[in-house]
Amino acid sequence: MNQIITIGREFGSGGRELGRKLAEELHIAYYDKEIITEIAKHIDMSEEYVAEMVEKKPSYLFPTAVSHSFSVIDDYQIRQMKSLYQAQSDIIRRLAEKSSAVFIGRCADYILRDLHPFRIFVYAAMESRMKRCFERSGPDEKPLTEKEMRSMINRIDKGRARHYSDFTGRKWGGRINYDLLINTTDTEIDRIIPYLARMLTETTDK
Amino acid sequence: MNQIITIGREFGSGGRELGRKLAEELHIAYYDKEIITEIAKHIDMSEEYVAEMVEKKPSYLFPTAVSHSFSVIDDYQIRQMKSLYQAQSDIIRRLAEKSSAVFIGRCADYILRDLHPFRIFVYAAMESRMKRCFERSGPDEKPLTEKEMRSMINRIDKGRARHYSDFTGRKWGGRINYDLLINTTDTEIDRIIPYLARMLTETTDK
Repeated sequence: MNQIITIGREFGSGGRELGRKLAEELHIAYYDKEIITEIAKHIDMSEEYVAEMVEKKPSYLFPTAVSHSFSVIDDYQIRQMKSLYQAQSDIIRRLAEKSSAVFIGRCADYILRDLHPFRIFVYAAMESRMKRCFERSGPDEKPLTEKEMRSMINRIDKGRARHYSDFTGRKWGGRINYDLLINTTDTEIDRIIPYLARMLTETTDK
Repeated sequence: MNQIITIGREFGSGGRELGRKLAEELHIAYYDKEIITEIAKHIDMSEEYVAEMVEKKPSYLFPTAVSHSFSVIDDYQIRQMKSLYQAQSDIIRRLAEKSSAVFIGRCADYILRDLHPFRIFVYAAMESRMKRCFERSGPDEKPLTEKEMRSMINRIDKGRARHYSDFTGRKWGGRINYDLLINTTDTEIDRIIPYLARMLTETTDK
């Protein structure tokens, strides 16, 4: 059976880096934005538009959770959202059935729940996340103030929490929805990867 | 510097087993009830009485958090509780300064916070915890019904959560208070210990 690992993560916690390095260590596939690209091809939307729909739209656009709100948006939008959710689920499922893989975000833990993925959630103290975000800002970007950075991180995570809750009916980051929660505040990700990889393999190889 | 690992755990999750095996793997000291025994010797109370005080008494007996409730209990009880908390903290600190160690429960993560312990929280799905508790019941004990077992587990954890919150002002099991949260629902603890031990060492050895 394929080894499927899903990673939920707070913005700036290094969850994507951890996922990518874990996939490298285990020699398995890695998917984050690639999934969106696939979705875009599949349902003929631009990648950018799909990303925006998936991460940022208010919850009333997700018909699975709030059908009573349908009246406020038009049929076209509803059909589009249904189609997007279905397409996303289909593609994640197809990828998981094709080979062992690490999936970042996208509610993959929920979408693939019958395959019993190993579900990781990565988080960190706000100061550590801000530091990471400042370090990875490009030299050409207008630098944010500390206040702006904190506000942006909170806004993105609020969006992720709402998106996850709307699609799954579960609490984003709630421990019972995961197998392992890793605080990266004082952790050098490179140093733990080999042992984390072995630990997951021991847990999932039954 | 000593390697200090603290373990909070849901009742029946195998947290104590995980802690003991981790200490064995790392060849470091292990403390759970031993701490209570030490406290008992130190402040001249029986081990049983101390255990009862620490785990089971209602929150108004803990003066650190609820001083406005002092009027309902007598001075003797207050002095006793203050003395117990102080003695417990002193002993945990003395042990942590003496050698590397694993501490189970007892708010050790909070008491030792300036030593930056590696803080683990162990939890599991209710069904898994019930199964573990049924398996470790002695042959001479009157067996509990499923309903009684579930109720006992919930009662004990409610006590632990309240005790932790009263002493520390923090949320028991809240991810930001820990470095790693481990769901033991489908995990064979023996198999992950060697890699978990190495992972912690990589994180704490700086």
